[in-house]
Amino acid sequence: MNTSTDSHKTRTGTRPQGQKSSTRERILAASLSLFNEQGERSVSTNHIAAHLQISPGNLYYHFKNKQAIIFALFEQYQQRVLGILEIPAGRTLQPQDKLHYLQGVFKGLWDYRFLHRDMEHLLLADPELHRHYRDFFRTCQSRVEAIFRGLGAAGILNVSEDDISGLALNTWIIVTSWFSFLRCNLLSDEAGTISPELLQGGIYQVFTLERPYLTDEYRDEMIALQQRYMPRPSWLVHDPAGGE
Amino acid sequence: MNTSTDSHKTRTGTRPQGQKSSTRERILAASLSLFNEQGERSVSTNHIAAHLQISPGNLYYHFKNKQAIIFALFEQYQQRVLGILEIPAGRTLQPQDKLHYLQGVFKGLWDYRFLHRDMEHLLLADPELHRHYRDFFRTCQSRVEAIFRGLGAAGILNVSEDDISGLALNTWIIVTSWFSFLRCNLLSDEAGTISPELLQGGIYQVFTLERPYLTDEYRDEMIALQQRYMPRPSWLVHDPAGGE
Repeated sequence: MNTSTDSHKTRTGTRPQGQKSSTRERILAASLSLFNEQGERSVSTNHIAAHLQISPGNLYYHFKNKQAIIFALFEQYQQRVLGILEIPAGRTLQPQDKLHYLQGVFKGLWDYRFLHRDMEHLLLADPELHRHYRDFFRTCQSRVEAIFRGLGAAGILNVSEDDISGLALNTWIIVTSWFSFLRCNLLSDEAGTISPELLQGGIYQVFTLERPYLTDEYRDEMIALQQRYMPRPSWLVHDPAGGE
Repeated sequence: MNTSTDSHKTRTGTRPQGQKSSTRERILAASLSLFNEQGERSVSTNHIAAHLQISPGNLYYHFKNKQAIIFALFEQYQQRVLGILEIPAGRTLQPQDKLHYLQGVFKGLWDYRFLHRDMEHLLLADPELHRHYRDFFRTCQSRVEAIFRGLGAAGILNVSEDDISGLALNTWIIVTSWFSFLRCNLLSDEAGTISPELLQGGIYQVFTLERPYLTDEYRDEMIALQQRYMPRPSWLVHDPAGGE
């Protein structure tokens, strides 16, 4: 996971090596798990320390407050996503690359799902995180635009430069809003009912964005890939509890 | 605004006539304004009563609690949106209809902006609102699908039935997430910095979704309409404070 993060400097400094690293990593892993399960607003640093059976002082030695933990988790998430959104060196893009990108990004969304769940709240609470997040957005936009250009160069899409930035922005919005869309529109309660499988229904929607740009040569192959992610009809139109 | 709301029954009952109606309407208007300006979480029923210089008892005579006020405002919003998303009777759709739909819906988003700002929170707090919201989503999807079909029948878009549901769902997500997108990605603080003009940048993005489906006959005209909403470059790619 030592992928480049471009200009994104770490606020929490370089990662301590050796034994300190182990406690630091355990704090981050436990925080991520608690934030994801219970919501970041419900989890305090004391809660995290108790969960790990360490003293609050030991936790504060590694992170001065909860914001610093959130910031470090955001950096992990950012590294993960930017590591995925690379153009492979020395070859043109293939249809499978598209799946690799989307599966990787949606897996990242799932693993760090507390972030996009309450992003506005997190950003309002931490202006430095907000600046980094905006940089991350812009870097992602550039990467996604490069991927669309690459799919054009590979003959998979027929897109003009005029189309690309709008397409990249719509992709960002669909991907980052998908989880919230599921919670608002599909689920009557949230206890354990959003699964990675539901989340991956977003892959179908992202394919929908670029479907009209598919070239004749690749249309059938790409639509067959998209169909794998077709949501069950009961999700989107009918009652989630019932059939049709 | 006596448009049909389909199967959406009013929980708050029929609107009282005469003098009661006036206080009720004042409570709703003041609540909407306070929720929009200060965020719903920061505004209590006592706050609303004090703002109107009425007693809390008078407020409770009209609404048993804050949730009932939110529910009534949601019903107003729903009526507004469903009133806009009608197919005109007796004629085919025109390019200007598309603008009418989008301007109306984005104006509704702006006027009731507290709703989509914290929708998940509102829905978790009120399961009945959540049920009504899901019905509203499904009704909107059907209406938007009918509009896309109408644009197809008018020769403006070349869309297949396979494309329409994905296109309608992407439209919903872009529209309802646009405000949150602006706050997360563009603005460093939110005091008064989101304007109706910024919000209307979402219209450009929605046009982007259907752009590849435009027929040769209407492409130039529709792209000219879209250009009116082109965001300033500084919004989306560069620092909001600076130029390029």
